[in-house]
Amino acid sequence: MASLVKAAVVGGSGYTGIELIRLLLVHPGVELVTVTSRAEAGRPLADFFPSFRGHPVAETLEFQPPEVEILKKADIVFFATPNGTAMKSTTELVAAGVKVIDLAADFRLQNEAQWQEWYSMDHAAPELLGKAIYALADIEKEKQKEVSVIGNPGCYPTSVQLPLIPLLKAGLIDLAQPIIADCKSGISGAGRSSKTEHSYSEVSEDFTAYGIEKHRHWIEIRNGLVAAAGATEEANNMSFTFTPHLLPMPRGIFSTIYVTLKDQTDAGVEAARKAIGQAYADSAFVHLLPEGQVPHTKSVRGSNSCHLNLFKAKSGQLVITSAIDNLMKGAAGQAVQNMNLMFGLPEGQGLSITGITP
Amino acid sequence: MASLVKAAVVGGSGYTGIELIRLLLVHPGVELVTVTSRAEAGRPLADFFPSFRGHPVAETLEFQPPEVEILKKADIVFFATPNGTAMKSTTELVAAGVKVIDLAADFRLQNEAQWQEWYSMDHAAPELLGKAIYALADIEKEKQKEVSVIGNPGCYPTSVQLPLIPLLKAGLIDLAQPIIADCKSGISGAGRSSKTEHSYSEVSEDFTAYGIEKHRHWIEIRNGLVAAAGATEEANNMSFTFTPHLLPMPRGIFSTIYVTLKDQTDAGVEAARKAIGQAYADSAFVHLLPEGQVPHTKSVRGSNSCHLNLFKAKSGQLVITSAIDNLMKGAAGQAVQNMNLMFGLPEGQGLSITGITP
Amino acid sequence: MASLVKAAVVGGSGYTGIELIRLLLVHPGVELVTVTSRAEAGRPLADFFPSFRGHPVAETLEFQPPEVEILKKADIVFFATPNGTAMKSTTELVAAGVKVIDLAADFRLQNEAQWQEWYSMDHAAPELLGKAIYALADIEKEKQKEVSVIGNPGCYPTSVQLPLIPLLKAGLIDLAQPIIADCKSGISGAGRSSKTEHSYSEVSEDFTAYGIEKHRHWIEIRNGLVAAAGATEEANNMSFTFTPHLLPMPRGIFSTIYVTLKDQTDAGVEAARKAIGQAYADSAFVHLLPEGQVPHTKSVRGSNSCHLNLFKAKSGQLVITSAIDNLMKGAAGQAVQNMNLMFGLPEGQGLSITGITP
Amino acid sequence: MASLVKAAVVGGSGYTGIELIRLLLVHPGVELVTVTSRAEAGRPLADFFPSFRGHPVAETLEFQPPEVEILKKADIVFFATPNGTAMKSTTELVAAGVKVIDLAADFRLQNEAQWQEWYSMDHAAPELLGKAIYALADIEKEKQKEVSVIGNPGCYPTSVQLPLIPLLKAGLIDLAQPIIADCKSGISGAGRSSKTEHSYSEVSEDFTAYGIEKHRHWIEIRNGLVAAAGATEEANNMSFTFTPHLLPMPRGIFSTIYVTLKDQTDAGVEAARKAIGQAYADSAFVHLLPEGQVPHTKSVRGSNSCHLNLFKAKSGQLVITSAIDNLMKGAAGQAVQNMNLMFGLPEGQGLSITGITP
Repeated sequence: MASLVKAAVVGGSGYTGIELIRLLLVHPGVELVTVTSRAEAGRPLADFFPSFRGHPVAETLEFQPPEVEILKKADIVFFATPNGTAMKSTTELVAAGVKVIDLAADFRLQNEAQWQEWYSMDHAAPELLGKAIYALADIEKEKQKEVSVIGNPGCYPTSVQLPLIPLLKAGLIDLAQPIIADCKSGISGAGRSSKTEHSYSEVSEDFTAYGIEKHRHWIEIRNGLVAAAGATEEANNMSFTFTPHLLPMPRGIFSTIYVTLKDQTDAGVEAARKAIGQAYADSAFVHLLPEGQVPHTKSVRGSNSCHLNLFKAKSGQLVITSAIDNLMKGAAGQAVQNMNLMFGLPEGQGLSITGITP
Repeated sequence: MASLVKAAVVGGSGYTGIELIRLLLVHPGVELVTVTSRAEAGRPLADFFPSFRGHPVAETLEFQPPEVEILKKADIVFFATPNGTAMKSTTELVAAGVKVIDLAADFRLQNEAQWQEWYSMDHAAPELLGKAIYALADIEKEKQKEVSVIGNPGCYPTSVQLPLIPLLKAGLIDLAQPIIADCKSGISGAGRSSKTEHSYSEVSEDFTAYGIEKHRHWIEIRNGLVAAAGATEEANNMSFTFTPHLLPMPRGIFSTIYVTLKDQTDAGVEAARKAIGQAYADSAFVHLLPEGQVPHTKSVRGSNSCHLNLFKAKSGQLVITSAIDNLMKGAAGQAVQNMNLMFGLPEGQGLSITGITP
Repeated sequence: MASLVKAAVVGGSGYTGIELIRLLLVHPGVELVTVTSRAEAGRPLADFFPSFRGHPVAETLEFQPPEVEILKKADIVFFATPNGTAMKSTTELVAAGVKVIDLAADFRLQNEAQWQEWYSMDHAAPELLGKAIYALADIEKEKQKEVSVIGNPGCYPTSVQLPLIPLLKAGLIDLAQPIIADCKSGISGAGRSSKTEHSYSEVSEDFTAYGIEKHRHWIEIRNGLVAAAGATEEANNMSFTFTPHLLPMPRGIFSTIYVTLKDQTDAGVEAARKAIGQAYADSAFVHLLPEGQVPHTKSVRGSNSCHLNLFKAKSGQLVITSAIDNLMKGAAGQAVQNMNLMFGLPEGQGLSITGITP
Repeated sequence: MASLVKAAVVGGSGYTGIELIRLLLVHPGVELVTVTSRAEAGRPLADFFPSFRGHPVAETLEFQPPEVEILKKADIVFFATPNGTAMKSTTELVAAGVKVIDLAADFRLQNEAQWQEWYSMDHAAPELLGKAIYALADIEKEKQKEVSVIGNPGCYPTSVQLPLIPLLKAGLIDLAQPIIADCKSGISGAGRSSKTEHSYSEVSEDFTAYGIEKHRHWIEIRNGLVAAAGATEEANNMSFTFTPHLLPMPRGIFSTIYVTLKDQTDAGVEAARKAIGQAYADSAFVHLLPEGQVPHTKSVRGSNSCHLNLFKAKSGQLVITSAIDNLMKGAAGQAVQNMNLMFGLPEGQGLSITGITP
């Protein structure tokens, strides 16, 4: 039997962190050796997260301070931290032979200037930008083995890119027409928040939009779409609009995407179904639903799945619907999938948990 | 003192009906004389709706069977019934001098053939189609006095047409580009439902879309947009896409609308703000929020208000956000406003109830 | 026509404050002249509370700093502030002829030592304790006219005392047996909170208890019960247990109260129904529901009502159920009712708004 | 390697059924061979439950009609059916050597007359009542191996009996004083419902009680308590009150239980903590939380855990708080645990999934 992969989680007290821990605690190929949290150092995991009560590791493993020397003992370090954190210690970890998956944005953009523009800070490890990969684990499955650093895709980008990339690669979309992604996210996307605007009394029975004019996921999504479309001049000029909204529920992202197919007849729609169907024919996680069945966020709650479907609007536009769990396929689930691919483990190991409903 | 307007509500046991009753019970210019419900006939309102306990009228007024003779005693009859109901007795009521506001679709389309196509039934009173008006009460304020029958606009149409009509009238929108309305509605839009798919266990923590390829509000919205754009050939050819979604909350509609302005510069956006601002400068109910402030459905919950705002996306597209309470501005509130206009009462009478929050 | 009562609200940016403003803005006997909020001073109400958009007073009236000189211009000052705030300026306001209703706890206990014990601070105006009254407006309706200061009852105490006081006054309860109030409150009871534990992600789909061993409402409730039972030795020795819980919803309190009747037969239960029925026979707001019908918090949402019912458990115990809106009957609604009684206005003026459902 | 246990689920289209399937699909010691549903026969599981998309068994295994011949091929049959269903085929299945776990009430009461009284129907297999066991899997761990039929405890009974049984066995509770269980359940306890009263619009932001005077779980709970207390005359005369309530959330039961300890001093409470602590010292699933920490339903959502804690009220009463997931520990999770014990598998196999939060 192969030895277990030793995993560490930095920033284990946020929602992405707890979700990673939930997965790693039951992953048969992994030993969770370190979880850091400056604020909770010295406290056993189960003490902070009562949902882990009874799990032998969670009852004994204590949060540790986020020190690089401790992290070096792991085979892989997951950063579930704010933007700008992972980049500070990744160089040292990589030098020590440790692999890194950042669930924040530090390694999502390959271009240093772009990073500075959108994240308003210098990049602490620009030399890694060319070596790290942005890895949508359901599309890219090979390069993970060769790299030491992975920028795990954002939640909105995952939900938008998974359906669009196969269509763009197949050249089915009219790039001269606007591409619009109207995305709705559960409030856990805002993190373990102490803002009044995220309090239950404010969020319940409310729906609103935010970041309409500028949201950092816009550039991340657009980069991926442009690349999939071949990075041609036409692709670089595409009109892409992205509007994030907040749903009164904790988990889930639903994206409604509007594109104009080059062929707006039924045959065009059929070709689009075929392109997506083939792209994910062998996928354990991305599922094109039977014709006419609309995805539900609840069907993917707690699972690493993405449910997709395509519809032809009365106007002729193609309407793409996509549902994921933002903390799973949009964060921790995809990160574990990327880890599996990095270490040559079965891609779906530790991820066979189906959605929880109702 | 002027005599009170005698009002009747047909179909008083659904959500639109109860909302109408809630408003009419405290309306200083109205006497609620009749509420019908075949199923609940003989039962006092407060017995069926415990929320009305203690109101003297609700404690004594009994549901009556939906008979035209009874309804003729009213000055105005509100139909809060399924599509195809109001049209059966409206001719007789009008002949008896009674005014009618239908909150369903019977008088929303002026074209008989279109009605048959979209509602799959013959129209029982086609002669009224030319005489009835479709009345967005915040735009049309004069014709109500002259007509006997009003088709009260649908909830989605109200939320989409209120911001778009002033922009179309001002000729600011590029009609050659797609117009997309991505609309999200609270579940009360589905009515007092006994479908499993509307049960709490299914809807909670879920978000999905429905009717993507065909929804009856598509034609109603499009008719209004085409008319506002001058009913030109270009207007008739507009590409309009409408996607309704279901929110896990009882009330509220939030519409995110994507258009391309003819002038995509900041000046174009400014002109759009100005057009909307002027259109509703004197409005008690439609409010263009201060720049940058996004509407929230919770801010209009229980009120007859519509909150709007405009944003310029990175792509240059104009993103319009609109929030209403589907049962108020999207149904009962607008109906009462239309009644006020019909009878020469102050437009906002009985509607001064502000939103309820949290 | 009588002149309007000039009302001021101190602490107008919390949930109790906004609810008071919602009521006072449409109260026909009141002019809202001042709303204070140190943090929001200078900003019009409607700017902070978008739900008031369009109301002429809310669009123009600006928050003011909480200065006594400003408050003296009012006829009545409502304190919607934390405990220990109202007592600091009430003496000066009363001296200036201004009446005061405190929605916090400063005037709820008549005994200075008890106040110090339970609120862990000295009372700033002990001389007022004997003159102020604790006023359950549905029971006490006369003394309001004679006093200058009212301690408005707490939300839990209102929901528990309204059903129990008539039973205790009638001597129907066996005081030698435990009296237990198991109370469940919507999260708005925690105020406009910025605690992580009150965030949507934490509260949604969660239910828990808090303050089980000690909660300040215990003494407030018990004082009222002991007094209603005649303040005898037996009454003073009653065993009273109170457990507050948090519901995943913004508004509403539901109390399930367990007592042993002296007469545990059906006749005893009937006598209990009669005692409550008679106590509230003329009440506009407290309603004993028809036999067998259980109160729902949703039926009283947004209204000043309290719905009650009694049941006989298999064990013979009497189970009392009580539902109110914690921000209305449990705070702002009752405060306005008390103001009406203080100023000789019709008791229910400005409170005819029925519950909002769904 | 031991051969896999072949499992069948009857009534696989309800919430208890889907939860069982969710667990059995990933149980390493089980092969799910049959799922029946008359209504969905012929349809693959994943087609009906999109949350199972991508699981190879769920994608291929089709619902079958509920015929005994098919069920006989399994080693164990779980009945996730309405009361009165399992008893009709259990005799035949047992005769064929198949084991049965009924998640409904058919084998929860050992006394035929009692069953008829509370369930208003004749028992179809009275001869099995003496042979079947009622198995709280965290207390009874041996008899499962010896029996063929298990009556899986109800959700409310599990949450109430787990904390009370150790205290009663230790003789710490004063049986002359009332025992009160105030229980709050998520709406999924009502099943996959098509009643209007269970619709989202009705349940959201609502809290109410039901079955106060008579609920079938009363007798089930009381039987267990009386037995734990030694079935003495005093025990048989205990005053037990049980009030179920409905929470506006899908999953979770929180029980607040009031008892009087014989020793009401701190030492008495300490003895109670010790009794519960010892009873579950080796339990993987039942956890007495650290002193002062209140259970949350969210902490056990999706897991087989029960979180408990004890508090001493001001009155001296002991307040016991208990949280479970009604579909897991209160139904499917406990059923799988019972199956493990029946077949000599590790007790916690297939149940290591921790709670899902947020």
